[in-house]
Amino acid sequence: MIRTALALGLAGFATAAHADVLIDNVSGITIGEDGEIDRFTGLWIDDDGRIKQVLDKGDRRPAKTDFRYDGEGRTVIPGMIDAHAHVMGLGIAELTLDLSNTRSLDDALAEIARFARENPSRPWILGRGWNQEQWGLGRFPTAAELDRAVADRPVYLERVDGHAGWANSEAIKRAGVTAATKDPEGGRIERIAGSKTPSGVFVDLASELFIPVIPAPRPAERDLALMEAQEKLLSNGITAVADMGTTMADWLTFRRVADRGNLKVRIMSYASDPETMEMIGGAGERPWLYGDRLRMNGLKIYLDGALGSRGAWLKRPYADDPGNTGLPLIEPTRFRNVLSRAALGGYQVAIHAIGDAANGEALAAMAELKESFPGDTRWRIEHAQIVDPADLPAFGANGIIASMQPVHQTSDRLMAESRLDPARLEGAYAWRTVLDTGGKLAFGSDAPVESPNPFAGLAAAISRTGADGQPEGGWYPQQAVSRKEALAGFTSDAAYAGFAEGRFGKLVAGERADFVIVDRDPLAANPQDLRQTRVIQVWMDGEPVWGYTAK
Amino acid sequence: MIRTALALGLAGFATAAHADVLIDNVSGITIGEDGEIDRFTGLWIDDDGRIKQVLDKGDRRPAKTDFRYDGEGRTVIPGMIDAHAHVMGLGIAELTLDLSNTRSLDDALAEIARFARENPSRPWILGRGWNQEQWGLGRFPTAAELDRAVADRPVYLERVDGHAGWANSEAIKRAGVTAATKDPEGGRIERIAGSKTPSGVFVDLASELFIPVIPAPRPAERDLALMEAQEKLLSNGITAVADMGTTMADWLTFRRVADRGNLKVRIMSYASDPETMEMIGGAGERPWLYGDRLRMNGLKIYLDGALGSRGAWLKRPYADDPGNTGLPLIEPTRFRNVLSRAALGGYQVAIHAIGDAANGEALAAMAELKESFPGDTRWRIEHAQIVDPADLPAFGANGIIASMQPVHQTSDRLMAESRLDPARLEGAYAWRTVLDTGGKLAFGSDAPVESPNPFAGLAAAISRTGADGQPEGGWYPQQAVSRKEALAGFTSDAAYAGFAEGRFGKLVAGERADFVIVDRDPLAANPQDLRQTRVIQVWMDGEPVWGYTAK
Repeated sequence: MIRTALALGLAGFATAAHADVLIDNVSGITIGEDGEIDRFTGLWIDDDGRIKQVLDKGDRRPAKTDFRYDGEGRTVIPGMIDAHAHVMGLGIAELTLDLSNTRSLDDALAEIARFARENPSRPWILGRGWNQEQWGLGRFPTAAELDRAVADRPVYLERVDGHAGWANSEAIKRAGVTAATKDPEGGRIERIAGSKTPSGVFVDLASELFIPVIPAPRPAERDLALMEAQEKLLSNGITAVADMGTTMADWLTFRRVADRGNLKVRIMSYASDPETMEMIGGAGERPWLYGDRLRMNGLKIYLDGALGSRGAWLKRPYADDPGNTGLPLIEPTRFRNVLSRAALGGYQVAIHAIGDAANGEALAAMAELKESFPGDTRWRIEHAQIVDPADLPAFGANGIIASMQPVHQTSDRLMAESRLDPARLEGAYAWRTVLDTGGKLAFGSDAPVESPNPFAGLAAAISRTGADGQPEGGWYPQQAVSRKEALAGFTSDAAYAGFAEGRFGKLVAGERADFVIVDRDPLAANPQDLRQTRVIQVWMDGEPVWGYTAK
Repeated sequence: MIRTALALGLAGFATAAHADVLIDNVSGITIGEDGEIDRFTGLWIDDDGRIKQVLDKGDRRPAKTDFRYDGEGRTVIPGMIDAHAHVMGLGIAELTLDLSNTRSLDDALAEIARFARENPSRPWILGRGWNQEQWGLGRFPTAAELDRAVADRPVYLERVDGHAGWANSEAIKRAGVTAATKDPEGGRIERIAGSKTPSGVFVDLASELFIPVIPAPRPAERDLALMEAQEKLLSNGITAVADMGTTMADWLTFRRVADRGNLKVRIMSYASDPETMEMIGGAGERPWLYGDRLRMNGLKIYLDGALGSRGAWLKRPYADDPGNTGLPLIEPTRFRNVLSRAALGGYQVAIHAIGDAANGEALAAMAELKESFPGDTRWRIEHAQIVDPADLPAFGANGIIASMQPVHQTSDRLMAESRLDPARLEGAYAWRTVLDTGGKLAFGSDAPVESPNPFAGLAAAISRTGADGQPEGGWYPQQAVSRKEALAGFTSDAAYAGFAEGRFGKLVAGERADFVIVDRDPLAANPQDLRQTRVIQVWMDGEPVWGYTAK
């Protein structure tokens, strides 16, 4: 499937490689040099794949180019940038069992049993995407329930947010976990009520108990996963992505695929730990590789968990779990040391912070360290979901980027309402306030936690409504952003958040000619229509990489 | 020092980048298309840095080229290829204490004390190159002796062959090694006579006891080490090298330096273990990277240790240690599994085998597996120092490459005579017999175990004498090779051993224009003069990379 799409595209276009190209007769939209919406009708692209000139209706076209493409009036937008995704997670999810569409526990168990039956040779049944909230279960599922689907082989399934794992009895046995196993720091083993026996769900760092026993994918599988992820991203109009938590195995996959000329999507990489970051990136200025397709940008750190598993670190207890405030995953001194070490090496830092305590701590640490590192650090907070309203101005005050995922707001709103009281919801997914207090946004999807579809993200960003159009008028609609701000969040601002401005993100002279042909105007479509946007073709460096067939 | 040489060269030549070049008026020598010596007077090089035409005296020169270089009649030879070296080991050795020129234990202790004094801030004193044979000590040195030089800090010094480490008491304490510590599999802890107390030397895998406590070099130090190694190699006329035992940290260093455009020397990499190999190389055809400067070729495996530390695995006991036959480092089934796994993945295998038992085992395993893998495997045996004469024809019979280091023969001959009886010396360093029975040779240095100087290697290869000219008439001189065979061993045959034929190794049309200007004719100089060859300039891809200054 992948191969066909890519091969077809490139074969039809073979003549235009390393040639100058005119894309004409389009209805073009981009964030322009001045940060405002710019509309255009043509792009003249040089033989390096960079834009030579953006052409308006009245502008003279070059007399002679190696290749001309008639857009037939269709809408052209910049290649979308996903500022927060997990590239290999997305690809591997494509290769494993996906439970994200299951509507009940029984539905999920049936799916798991079917997948196990259809894959008799797999020694482990692996999957992800379950969500007890979506099932209306009101509690975590159990190992005993999972045993009803598969008992002969180990099963391990990640929760939709990646912050908890659900194992069957065989998997728990393989991991050597028993009633005597203590909760690891930063993690929690769910227990059967009134006993110490593990009940089957392992929250946050407790899930790492399974790392030694789950077989790691081989390099060939990882390569395939990356190609699947790339297909998924391109088909959604995404040409660049910030990869959050790149492991050494992930990075080597990027390089294997890129070394063979098969990396299309641009990856801004944030390493899973400081050692991996430094081994890959080394000292001094880090180059963009493969013609701006890959760079080790910096470090991703988890400061807390997620709301769904009540791992997000809150200033006050969960409204629906009075004894629990979630927990920090790294202690304050070490957190500041890691920040300093990265900044000293010229690396950017992206802090996962979901709860208001985690956001407060991240903002405080960054404000403290700002004096020592006055340069262009562009520290980022990833998710920034629940922020104490008093802390929100700290983004703007310290040049901190809020890297947020609009669709999380729509997926999580009911859960957020049950986990939190109304006072705390004032600072929840507070995009508008971040901007109004001088902060910068970058938008993403957190794929595979959510679909990578950026048009769903644009729709959520401008409307604060979900795919069902609910709630009427939007959830805390005062936090919606404008269409221009939403587009910038998925293009130019996401590029800025990855130090990629001037390279890609805008369709302006000098930047890479990465653009997407879509079937409607994102500045005109209503939110429900916007979500349905169809990607027709994707071009990068002035060459078609997805969806193109020669006429 | 590095920076000056490289920068000067390139600055002077800036105009010729991506241009066609004529190198004229040289006395050129290469192994030609037909495998025979070819002499020429000019090279016409295209703008990709490949040879367009090799020109004889009478050949018409191109009328117009972007750059012309008058060689003023000097000798030009192909860039030398070292078929067996340890690139990062060479570089790191340049940054640590070098004991290879010490003539006695006292001399070494004085050097160590001086180095420690001059480097007060180093938490560990690290070095290499000691050789108790060279000291005439007749036994290993001890921790107590080392304590006399440095007692306040840990000291760890690798033996010249890399197969043993010498530690002081503080280092032994840090490693947690005591009288109760058992010898690890594949290694031996030397003990004080009549007790179990470690005496201070750790042979083969016993040296790994120190890995957890010796601080690993940081990426910036590794980058510097690679630049040092490259300077050392280029200054010796070496433009390509087979790196034996590339670790992940080594590979990432190669990439960091290459990504910044600073990798000059071509590296054919053989990974330290199958996991590293597969993580780097992945499935399917592996590309040459950075314009033929780097490739993951395959796997290096240690089948035994070295003669000096009596770790080489012999069919019968050491003549000077009747109870000891050395030891295999991998058991037969696992050895065959590793060979098969590599071959299945299309990876080449290079087996370190020094003793006759190890060579017999490697040759037998390869002969057995040849049936399952009838393709162009080019399995290599590294060192192949002591081979049972009955086993020697197995190289030719199975297309196995003997990757040998001529200088080892001259450095080791006295030790070989004491470790082995005359019957076994008939198959020692038996270059001639390998060739005469249809086998292929590739020559290298094993740097940093020996100097990477290939002219010393050429001299040893044709004369079987050392730097002192001894022994008169050569050691087992019937095993010497011809000048042409020696040159091929360090050029075209070393390229073939790394699947690089057609890319580099010969100065023929279509190959990379990697050549060295030297001050004498290696086909005419007598062995003593040949050793003194001075490298004047090194060019790669038709551009000067070392020693060039604009006129």
